[in-house]
Amino acid sequence: MKPIGVIISPFRDVSDNVPIQGALAPDAEGLIKVYPEYTEGLRDVEGFSHVIVLYLFHKCHGSMLAVRPYMDDTVRGVFATRSPHRPNHIGLTVAKLVAREGNCLRVAGIDVLDGTPLLDIKPFVPAFDAPAGATAGWAEKYTTGEKTPVSTSTKSGMEWRHG
Amino acid sequence: MKPIGVIISPFRDVSDNVPIQGALAPDAEGLIKVYPEYTEGLRDVEGFSHVIVLYLFHKCHGSMLAVRPYMDDTVRGVFATRSPHRPNHIGLTVAKLVAREGNCLRVAGIDVLDGTPLLDIKPFVPAFDAPAGATAGWAEKYTTGEKTPVSTSTKSGMEWRHG
Repeated sequence: MKPIGVIISPFRDVSDNVPIQGALAPDAEGLIKVYPEYTEGLRDVEGFSHVIVLYLFHKCHGSMLAVRPYMDDTVRGVFATRSPHRPNHIGLTVAKLVAREGNCLRVAGIDVLDGTPLLDIKPFVPAFDAPAGATAGWAEKYTTGEKTPVSTSTKSGMEWRHG
Repeated sequence: MKPIGVIISPFRDVSDNVPIQGALAPDAEGLIKVYPEYTEGLRDVEGFSHVIVLYLFHKCHGSMLAVRPYMDDTVRGVFATRSPHRPNHIGLTVAKLVAREGNCLRVAGIDVLDGTPLLDIKPFVPAFDAPAGATAGWAEKYTTGEKTPVSTSTKSGMEWRHG
């Protein structure tokens, strides 16, 4: 498992109000750069409207099995959250593909720190990745507007450490 | 990066007609077992209708930047496909969560080989993971019924090796 590129984003630090999910920051633009030797692998990706980006939570050290999600006021099992403090520090964002420029993808809706190591890019296929009628457990009320999330961005390393 | 569990599936071998995507085999049931020491991390996951499963393509050796997807008759860049032959052998399936039983999740729509090492489980949140109006590039015609896919399951190690 080795980085295949790097993600350039407007967010320099966890105190920088990093959106906790790309969908919550649709205007945040980022640049996904694969190393030049992987450029050929991007062929035809420009036809897709969205990509699934897998990356390393490289600023996250350690893991916890119970975390309090930023949105919520209750401690949850880490696999019921998108917290970086997971046993394997793999992050996932579905981002809108704005354009491909050589070995770079310009994307909108990015929620990662500048310099994040890239692990993989997969095409988003609605028929595979967007099941009809899906519901979001404890997060449902926060994402449907029924309840206001506690927070939708990181604010400090302290909160970051507490998931 | 270490396995946190294992996936039990009905598919023993790549010659076993493994569905290329879980959504194409909604009745294929599997069992996602996290090792007992991670059980606490599953708390509250049972509230979600679907989970994003990340795993290792452990039977896939080597990688290619250009592959022919099973569905298609044209060679594509690997990042425009879901081929296992990627630089990092990370697989992703959105599966329907049927039930949680202790350290196991019973899921439907599984498309992995029996014994696949588990890397992560993330809750599927429609507001984050299912962008409205997404389109699927070259795969669009195959997933909307406009054109019949060349294949929707693996049939031999040879095809597997050729992506």
